[in-house]
Amino acid sequence: MEPRGLFITVEGGEGVGKSTNMQFLQEHLIEAGVDLVVTREPGGTALGEDIRELLLKPREDSMADNAELLLVFAARAQHLAQLVEPALARGQWVLCDRFTDATYAYQGGGRGLSMATIRQLEQLVQGDLRPDYTLLLDCPVEVGMSRASARGELDRFEQEQAEFFQRVRNTYLQLARESSGRYHLVDAARPLNEVEQQLEQVCAELLACWGARHR
Amino acid sequence: MEPRGLFITVEGGEGVGKSTNMQFLQEHLIEAGVDLVVTREPGGTALGEDIRELLLKPREDSMADNAELLLVFAARAQHLAQLVEPALARGQWVLCDRFTDATYAYQGGGRGLSMATIRQLEQLVQGDLRPDYTLLLDCPVEVGMSRASARGELDRFEQEQAEFFQRVRNTYLQLARESSGRYHLVDAARPLNEVEQQLEQVCAELLACWGARHR
Repeated sequence: MEPRGLFITVEGGEGVGKSTNMQFLQEHLIEAGVDLVVTREPGGTALGEDIRELLLKPREDSMADNAELLLVFAARAQHLAQLVEPALARGQWVLCDRFTDATYAYQGGGRGLSMATIRQLEQLVQGDLRPDYTLLLDCPVEVGMSRASARGELDRFEQEQAEFFQRVRNTYLQLARESSGRYHLVDAARPLNEVEQQLEQVCAELLACWGARHR
Repeated sequence: MEPRGLFITVEGGEGVGKSTNMQFLQEHLIEAGVDLVVTREPGGTALGEDIRELLLKPREDSMADNAELLLVFAARAQHLAQLVEPALARGQWVLCDRFTDATYAYQGGGRGLSMATIRQLEQLVQGDLRPDYTLLLDCPVEVGMSRASARGELDRFEQEQAEFFQRVRNTYLQLARESSGRYHLVDAARPLNEVEQQLEQVCAELLACWGARHR
Protein backbone atom coordinates (compact mmCIF):
# COMPACT_ATOMS: atom_id res chain seq x y z
CA MET A 1 0.00 0.00 0.00
CA GLU A 2 1.18 3.51 -0.84
CA PRO A 3 2.06 5.63 2.19
CA ARG A 4 -0.45 8.42 2.63
CA GLY A 5 0.55 11.72 0.97
CA LEU A 6 1.23 15.00 2.74
CA PHE A 7 -1.55 17.58 2.94
CA ILE A 8 -0.02 21.06 2.72
CA THR A 9 -2.05 24.26 2.91
CA VAL A 10 -0.98 27.80 2.09
CA GLU A 11 -2.73 30.58 3.96
CA GLY A 12 -2.65 34.36 4.10
CA GLY A 13 -4.71 37.50 3.64
CA GLU A 14 -5.16 39.57 0.49
CA GLY A 15 -2.07 40.49 -1.52
CA VAL A 16 0.46 38.42 0.45
CA GLY A 17 1.66 36.82 -2.80
CA LYS A 18 -0.04 33.46 -2.45
CA SER A 19 -0.24 32.76 -6.20
CA THR A 20 3.42 33.54 -6.90
CA ASN A 21 4.59 31.53 -3.93
CA MET A 22 2.25 28.60 -4.62
CA GLN A 23 3.78 28.48 -8.11
CA PHE A 24 7.29 28.46 -6.65
CA LEU A 25 6.44 25.66 -4.21
CA GLN A 26 4.76 23.63 -6.91
CA GLU A 27 7.77 23.81 -9.23
CA HIS A 28 10.20 22.93 -6.45
CA LEU A 29 8.22 19.96 -5.19
CA ILE A 30 7.61 18.54 -8.67
CA GLU A 31 11.32 18.93 -9.49
CA ALA A 32 12.09 16.99 -6.32
CA GLY A 33 9.96 14.13 -7.68
CA VAL A 34 6.81 14.67 -5.61
CA ASP A 35 3.56 13.40 -7.17
CA LEU A 36 1.67 16.60 -6.48
CA VAL A 37 -1.95 17.72 -6.78
CA VAL A 38 -2.40 21.49 -6.66
CA THR A 39 -5.84 22.79 -5.74
CA ARG A 40 -7.65 25.61 -3.98
CA GLU A 41 -10.50 26.48 -1.67
CA PRO A 42 -13.20 27.34 -2.07
CA GLY A 43 -13.12 25.31 -5.28
CA GLY A 44 -11.06 22.43 -6.61
CA THR A 45 -14.09 20.57 -7.99
CA ALA A 46 -16.79 21.53 -10.50
CA LEU A 47 -19.33 22.04 -7.71
CA GLY A 48 -16.75 23.80 -5.52
CA GLU A 49 -15.89 26.25 -8.27
CA ASP A 50 -19.61 27.00 -8.77
CA ILE A 51 -19.85 27.70 -5.02
CA ARG A 52 -16.69 29.83 -5.18
CA GLU A 53 -18.35 31.99 -7.81
CA LEU A 54 -21.39 32.49 -5.55
CA LEU A 55 -19.08 33.44 -2.67
CA LEU A 56 -16.85 35.88 -4.53
CA LYS A 57 -19.16 37.78 -6.84
CA PRO A 58 -20.29 41.12 -5.48
CA ARG A 59 -24.07 41.02 -4.81
CA GLU A 60 -26.79 43.62 -4.53
CA ASP A 61 -28.44 41.87 -1.57
CA SER A 62 -25.99 41.20 1.24
CA MET A 63 -25.12 37.59 2.01
CA ALA A 64 -26.07 36.33 5.48
CA ASP A 65 -22.93 35.44 7.45
CA ASN A 66 -24.23 31.94 8.24
CA ALA A 67 -25.03 31.35 4.57
CA GLU A 68 -21.46 32.29 3.67
CA LEU A 69 -20.05 29.96 6.33
CA LEU A 70 -22.20 27.02 5.21
CA LEU A 71 -21.32 27.59 1.55
CA VAL A 72 -17.62 27.48 2.42
CA PHE A 73 -18.06 24.16 4.21
CA ALA A 74 -20.30 22.75 1.45
CA ALA A 75 -17.52 23.40 -1.07
CA ARG A 76 -15.04 21.85 1.37
CA ALA A 77 -17.11 18.69 1.87
CA GLN A 78 -17.19 18.14 -1.90
CA HIS A 79 -13.48 18.94 -2.24
CA LEU A 80 -12.46 16.44 0.43
CA ALA A 81 -14.70 13.64 -0.84
CA GLN A 82 -13.96 14.05 -4.51
CA LEU A 83 -10.35 15.24 -4.66
CA VAL A 84 -8.29 15.64 -1.47
CA GLU A 85 -9.00 12.36 0.33
CA PRO A 86 -8.61 10.13 -2.75
CA ALA A 87 -5.32 11.86 -3.70
CA LEU A 88 -3.84 11.52 -0.20
CA ALA A 89 -4.95 7.89 -0.07
CA ARG A 90 -3.15 7.23 -3.37
CA GLY A 91 0.04 8.65 -1.84
CA GLN A 92 -0.06 11.97 -3.71
CA TRP A 93 0.76 15.19 -1.94
CA VAL A 94 -1.92 17.85 -1.98
CA LEU A 95 -0.92 21.52 -2.07
CA CYS A 96 -4.01 23.57 -1.32
CA ASP A 97 -4.45 27.33 -1.63
CA ARG A 98 -6.41 28.08 1.58
CA PHE A 99 -8.28 25.65 3.83
CA THR A 100 -10.14 25.71 7.14
CA ASP A 101 -7.69 28.13 8.78
CA ALA A 102 -9.03 30.65 6.26
CA THR A 103 -12.54 30.00 7.57
CA TYR A 104 -11.38 30.75 11.11
CA ALA A 105 -9.60 33.87 9.85
CA TYR A 106 -12.24 35.28 7.46
CA GLN A 107 -15.58 34.08 8.80
CA GLY A 108 -14.47 33.83 12.44
CA GLY A 109 -12.01 36.73 12.80
CA GLY A 110 -13.25 38.90 9.92
CA ARG A 111 -17.02 38.44 10.19
CA GLY A 112 -17.08 37.70 13.91
CA LEU A 113 -18.84 34.33 13.63
CA SER A 114 -18.51 31.97 16.56
CA MET A 115 -15.26 29.97 16.56
CA ALA A 116 -17.16 27.16 18.33
CA THR A 117 -19.61 26.95 15.41
CA ILE A 118 -16.73 26.80 12.93
CA ARG A 119 -15.13 24.05 15.02
CA GLN A 120 -18.43 22.12 14.97
CA LEU A 121 -18.65 22.34 11.17
CA GLU A 122 -14.95 21.45 10.83
CA GLN A 123 -15.61 18.29 12.83
CA LEU A 124 -18.72 17.47 10.81
CA VAL A 125 -17.03 17.89 7.43
CA GLN A 126 -13.46 16.80 8.14
CA GLY A 127 -13.66 14.30 10.97
CA ASP A 128 -10.02 13.97 12.04
CA LEU A 129 -8.49 15.32 8.84
CA ARG A 130 -6.17 18.27 9.40
CA PRO A 131 -3.34 19.63 7.20
CA ASP A 132 0.06 18.12 7.91
CA TYR A 133 1.77 21.41 7.21
CA THR A 134 0.50 24.96 6.87
CA LEU A 135 2.46 27.80 5.39
CA LEU A 136 1.25 31.20 6.55
CA LEU A 137 2.31 34.09 4.33
CA ASP A 138 2.08 37.14 6.51
CA CYS A 139 2.47 40.83 5.80
CA PRO A 140 1.04 44.08 7.17
CA VAL A 141 -2.51 44.75 6.03
CA GLU A 142 -1.72 47.99 4.21
CA VAL A 143 1.01 46.29 2.14
CA GLY A 144 -1.33 43.44 1.16
CA MET A 145 -4.27 45.72 0.39
CA SER A 146 -2.28 47.96 -1.90
CA ARG A 147 -0.94 44.92 -3.77
CA ALA A 148 -4.45 43.43 -4.08
CA SER A 149 -6.06 46.63 -5.30
CA ALA A 150 -3.31 47.00 -7.93
CA ARG A 151 -4.63 43.75 -9.46
CA GLY A 152 -7.82 45.45 -10.66
CA GLU A 153 -11.45 44.66 -9.91
CA LEU A 154 -12.06 43.55 -6.32
CA ASP A 155 -14.15 40.52 -5.34
CA ARG A 156 -16.68 40.48 -2.48
CA PHE A 157 -13.99 39.82 0.13
CA GLU A 158 -11.40 42.20 -1.29
CA GLN A 159 -14.00 44.98 -1.00
CA GLU A 160 -13.90 44.75 2.80
CA GLN A 161 -12.27 47.48 4.86
CA ALA A 162 -8.87 47.57 6.56
CA GLU A 163 -10.26 46.65 10.00
CA PHE A 164 -11.71 43.46 8.52
CA PHE A 165 -8.32 42.43 7.16
CA GLN A 166 -6.64 43.38 10.42
CA ARG A 167 -8.93 40.91 12.21
CA VAL A 168 -8.19 38.29 9.55
CA ARG A 169 -4.44 38.78 10.02
CA ASN A 170 -4.68 38.70 13.82
CA THR A 171 -6.63 35.44 13.69
CA TYR A 172 -4.10 33.84 11.36
CA LEU A 173 -1.24 34.86 13.65
CA GLN A 174 -3.09 33.49 16.65
CA LEU A 175 -3.75 30.18 14.88
CA ALA A 176 -0.04 30.00 14.04
CA ARG A 177 0.84 30.48 17.72
CA GLU A 178 -1.74 27.90 18.87
CA SER A 179 -0.87 25.17 16.37
CA SER A 180 2.80 25.99 15.98
CA GLY A 181 3.59 22.33 15.23
CA ARG A 182 2.14 22.42 11.74
CA TYR A 183 2.52 26.16 11.05
CA HIS A 184 5.41 27.76 9.27
CA LEU A 185 5.28 31.55 9.25
CA VAL A 186 6.81 33.37 6.28
CA ASP A 187 7.39 37.12 6.33
CA ALA A 188 5.83 38.01 2.99
CA ALA A 189 6.74 41.67 3.29
CA ARG A 190 10.38 40.76 2.56
CA PRO A 191 11.72 41.04 -1.02
CA LEU A 192 10.69 38.14 -3.25
CA ASN A 193 14.14 36.52 -3.37
CA GLU A 194 14.26 36.36 0.43
CA VAL A 195 10.76 34.86 0.56
CA GLU A 196 11.84 32.28 -2.01
CA GLN A 197 14.84 31.35 0.13
CA GLN A 198 12.43 30.68 2.98
CA LEU A 199 10.24 28.59 0.71
CA GLU A 200 13.23 26.52 -0.41
CA GLN A 201 13.89 25.72 3.23
CA VAL A 202 10.24 24.76 3.65
CA CYS A 203 10.46 22.36 0.71
CA ALA A 204 13.66 20.82 2.08
CA GLU A 205 12.00 20.38 5.46
CA LEU A 206 8.91 18.74 3.93
CA LEU A 207 10.99 16.34 1.82
CA ALA A 208 13.14 15.42 4.80
CA CYS A 209 10.09 14.80 6.96
CA TRP A 210 8.52 12.68 4.22
CA GLY A 211 11.76 10.74 3.70
CA ALA A 212 12.07 10.08 7.43
CA ARG A 213 8.47 8.99 7.68
CA HIS A 214 8.60 6.54 4.77
CA ARG A 215 12.11 5.17 4.80
CA MET B 1 -46.40 46.67 17.11
CA GLU B 2 -47.81 44.22 14.55
CA PRO B 3 -48.48 40.73 15.87
CA ARG B 4 -46.03 38.26 14.40
CA GLY B 5 -47.29 36.48 11.26
CA LEU B 6 -47.88 32.75 10.88
CA PHE B 7 -45.20 30.61 9.32
CA ILE B 8 -46.83 27.84 7.28
CA THR B 9 -44.91 25.17 5.42
CA VAL B 10 -46.15 22.69 2.82
CA GLU B 11 -44.32 19.39 2.59
CA GLY B 12 -44.49 16.22 0.55
CA GLY B 13 -42.59 13.96 -1.82
CA GLU B 14 -42.50 14.09 -5.61
CA GLY B 15 -45.79 14.38 -7.50
CA VAL B 16 -48.05 14.91 -4.47
CA GLY B 17 -49.51 18.02 -6.07
CA LYS B 18 -47.68 20.64 -4.04
CA SER B 19 -47.80 23.36 -6.71
CA THR B 20 -51.53 23.02 -7.37
CA ASN B 21 -52.37 22.92 -3.68
CA MET B 22 -50.03 25.80 -2.80
CA GLN B 23 -51.84 27.83 -5.43
CA PHE B 24 -55.22 26.93 -3.90
CA LEU B 25 -54.05 27.85 -0.38
CA GLN B 26 -52.57 31.11 -1.59
CA GLU B 27 -55.79 32.20 -3.28
CA HIS B 28 -57.93 31.28 -0.28
CA LEU B 29 -55.74 33.04 2.25
CA ILE B 30 -55.42 36.21 0.18
CA GLU B 31 -59.20 36.24 -0.38
CA ALA B 32 -59.61 36.01 3.38
CA GLY B 33 -57.53 39.16 3.72
CA VAL B 34 -54.22 37.66 4.78
CA ASP B 35 -51.09 39.69 3.95
CA LEU B 36 -49.25 36.71 2.50
CA VAL B 37 -45.71 36.07 1.27
CA VAL B 38 -45.35 32.92 -0.83
CA THR B 39 -41.90 31.43 -1.15
CA ARG B 40 -40.02 28.17 -1.50
CA GLU B 41 -36.99 26.20 -0.40
CA PRO B 42 -34.37 25.80 -1.47
CA GLY B 43 -34.68 29.29 -2.92
CA GLY B 44 -36.75 32.34 -2.14
CA THR B 45 -33.82 34.76 -2.48
CA ALA B 46 -31.41 35.48 -5.34
CA LEU B 47 -28.63 33.54 -3.59
CA GLY B 48 -31.04 30.78 -2.57
CA GLU B 49 -32.23 30.32 -6.14
CA ASP B 50 -28.61 30.09 -7.32
CA ILE B 51 -28.04 27.39 -4.70
CA ARG B 52 -31.25 25.63 -5.76
CA GLU B 53 -29.91 25.43 -9.27
CA LEU B 54 -26.69 23.80 -8.01
CA LEU B 55 -28.75 21.32 -5.99
CA LEU B 56 -31.21 20.32 -8.69
CA LYS B 57 -29.21 20.16 -11.87
CA PRO B 58 -28.06 16.65 -12.78
CA ARG B 59 -24.24 16.47 -12.54
CA GLU B 60 -21.56 14.25 -14.05
CA ASP B 61 -19.59 14.03 -10.80
CA SER B 62 -21.74 12.90 -7.90
CA MET B 63 -22.41 15.41 -5.13
CA ALA B 64 -21.11 14.48 -1.65
CA ASP B 65 -24.04 14.01 0.75
CA ASN B 66 -22.56 16.45 3.26
CA ALA B 67 -22.10 19.06 0.55
CA GLU B 68 -25.76 18.72 -0.39
CA LEU B 69 -26.84 19.05 3.23
CA LEU B 70 -24.73 22.16 3.80
CA LEU B 71 -25.96 23.77 0.58
CA VAL B 72 -29.55 23.25 1.70
CA PHE B 73 -28.84 24.96 5.02
CA ALA B 74 -26.84 27.76 3.38
CA ALA B 75 -29.87 28.59 1.21
CA ARG B 76 -32.06 28.38 4.33
CA ALA B 77 -29.85 30.75 6.33
CA GLN B 78 -30.10 33.35 3.58
CA HIS B 79 -33.85 32.80 3.19
CA LEU B 80 -34.53 33.28 6.89
CA ALA B 81 -32.34 36.37 7.24
CA GLN B 82 -33.44 38.13 4.09
CA LEU B 83 -37.08 37.14 3.63
CA VAL B 84 -38.84 34.92 6.20
CA GLU B 85 -37.86 36.61 9.47
CA PRO B 86 -38.46 40.18 8.27
CA ALA B 87 -41.88 39.21 6.83
CA LEU B 88 -43.02 37.44 10.02
CA ALA B 89 -41.80 40.37 12.09
CA ARG B 90 -43.87 42.76 9.94
CA GLY B 91 -46.94 40.62 10.66
CA GLN B 92 -47.13 38.98 7.24
CA TRP B 93 -47.86 35.30 6.92
CA VAL B 94 -45.28 33.22 5.12
CA LEU B 95 -46.40 30.24 3.04
CA CYS B 96 -43.31 28.21 2.19
CA ASP B 97 -43.03 25.32 -0.27
CA ARG B 98 -40.80 22.92 1.74
CA PHE B 99 -38.66 23.68 4.76
CA THR B 100 -36.50 21.78 7.27
CA ASP B 101 -38.85 18.79 7.45
CA ALA B 102 -37.84 18.20 3.81
CA THR B 103 -34.20 18.08 4.94
CA TYR B 104 -35.04 15.40 7.50
CA ALA B 105 -37.03 13.52 4.85
CA TYR B 106 -34.68 13.80 1.84
CA GLN B 107 -31.18 14.12 3.31
CA GLY B 108 -31.94 12.21 6.51
CA GLY B 109 -34.43 9.55 5.37
CA GLY B 110 -33.54 9.48 1.68
CA ARG B 111 -29.74 9.80 1.80
CA GLY B 112 -29.34 8.27 5.26
CA LEU B 113 -27.50 11.25 6.79
CA SER B 114 -27.48 11.50 10.57
CA MET B 115 -30.65 13.05 12.01
CA ALA B 116 -28.52 14.38 14.88
CA THR B 117 -26.35 16.30 12.40
CA ILE B 118 -29.43 17.77 10.75
CA ARG B 119 -30.74 18.77 14.17
CA GLN B 120 -27.41 20.47 14.91
CA LEU B 121 -27.57 22.49 11.69
CA GLU B 122 -31.25 23.30 12.26
CA GLN B 123 -30.30 24.76 15.63
CA LEU B 124 -27.37 26.69 14.17
CA VAL B 125 -29.38 28.23 11.34
CA GLN B 126 -32.83 28.61 12.89
CA GLY B 127 -32.29 29.02 16.61
CA ASP B 128 -35.81 28.60 18.00
CA LEU B 129 -37.68 29.29 14.77
CA ARG B 130 -40.02 26.46 13.73
CA PRO B 131 -43.07 26.54 11.44
CA ASP B 132 -46.36 27.29 13.19
CA TYR B 133 -48.22 24.93 10.91
CA THR B 134 -47.10 22.25 8.48
CA LEU B 135 -49.27 20.71 5.83
CA LEU B 136 -48.06 17.30 4.72
CA LEU B 137 -49.41 16.17 1.35
CA ASP B 138 -49.07 12.43 1.36
CA CYS B 139 -49.64 9.80 -1.29
CA PRO B 140 -48.19 6.39 -2.16
CA VAL B 141 -44.77 6.60 -3.80
CA GLU B 142 -45.85 4.96 -7.07
CA VAL B 143 -48.69 7.45 -7.54
CA GLY B 144 -46.37 10.42 -6.92
CA MET B 145 -43.59 9.08 -9.13
CA SER B 146 -45.87 8.50 -12.10
CA ARG B 147 -47.27 12.03 -11.75
CA ALA B 148 -43.76 13.53 -11.47
CA SER B 149 -42.37 11.63 -14.46
CA ALA B 150 -45.36 12.76 -16.54
CA ARG B 151 -44.08 16.35 -16.08
CA GLY B 152 -41.08 15.68 -18.33
CA GLU B 153 -37.38 16.05 -17.62
CA LEU B 154 -36.39 14.92 -14.09
CA ASP B 155 -34.11 16.89 -11.76
CA ARG B 156 -31.31 15.35 -9.64
CA PHE B 157 -33.76 14.33 -6.90
CA GLU B 158 -36.53 13.12 -9.18
CA GLN B 159 -33.99 10.77 -10.77
CA GLU B 160 -33.73 8.77 -7.53
CA GLN B 161 -35.26 5.29 -7.26
CA ALA B 162 -38.49 4.16 -5.60
CA GLU B 163 -36.75 2.99 -2.37
CA PHE B 164 -35.33 6.48 -1.91
CA PHE B 165 -38.84 8.00 -2.12
CA GLN B 166 -40.22 5.31 0.16
CA ARG B 167 -37.69 6.37 2.82
CA VAL B 168 -38.60 10.03 2.20
CA ARG B 169 -42.30 9.25 2.67
CA ASN B 170 -41.71 7.15 5.79
CA THR B 171 -39.68 9.94 7.36
CA TYR B 172 -42.37 12.53 6.62
CA LEU B 173 -45.03 10.30 8.17
CA GLN B 174 -42.87 9.75 11.22
CA LEU B 175 -42.29 13.51 11.61
CA ALA B 176 -46.05 14.01 11.39
CA ARG B 177 -46.59 11.50 14.19
CA GLU B 178 -43.83 13.02 16.35
CA SER B 179 -44.83 16.67 15.95
CA SER B 180 -48.56 16.13 15.51
CA GLY B 181 -49.28 19.51 17.08
CA ARG B 182 -48.19 21.48 14.06
CA TYR B 183 -48.75 18.81 11.39
CA HIS B 184 -51.83 18.46 9.29
CA LEU B 185 -51.82 15.34 7.10
CA VAL B 186 -53.69 15.52 3.78
CA ASP B 187 -54.36 12.40 1.72
CA ALA B 188 -53.17 13.64 -1.65
CA ALA B 189 -54.13 10.42 -3.42
CA ARG B 190 -57.82 11.46 -3.15
CA PRO B 191 -59.47 13.27 -6.10
CA LEU B 192 -58.58 16.95 -6.37
CA ASN B 193 -61.98 18.26 -5.20
CA GLU B 194 -61.73 16.20 -2.00
CA VAL B 195 -58.19 17.45 -1.37
CA GLU B 196 -59.43 21.00 -1.87
CA GLN B 197 -62.18 20.46 0.69
CA GLN B 198 -59.50 19.43 3.16
CA LEU B 199 -57.46 22.52 2.29
CA GLU B 200 -60.49 24.77 2.86
CA GLN B 201 -60.77 23.32 6.34
CA VAL B 202 -57.08 23.98 6.89
CA CYS B 203 -57.51 27.62 5.89
CA ALA B 204 -60.51 28.00 8.20
CA GLU B 205 -58.52 26.48 11.04
CA LEU B 206 -55.55 28.80 10.44
CA LEU B 207 -57.73 31.91 10.29
CA ALA B 208 -59.59 30.89 13.45
CA CYS B 209 -56.32 30.25 15.27
CA TRP B 210 -54.96 33.62 14.10
CA GLY B 211 -58.16 35.38 15.09
CA ALA B 212 -58.10 33.80 18.53
CA ARG B 213 -54.45 34.67 19.03
CA HIS B 214 -54.77 38.32 18.06
CA ARG B 215 -58.23 39.31 19.18
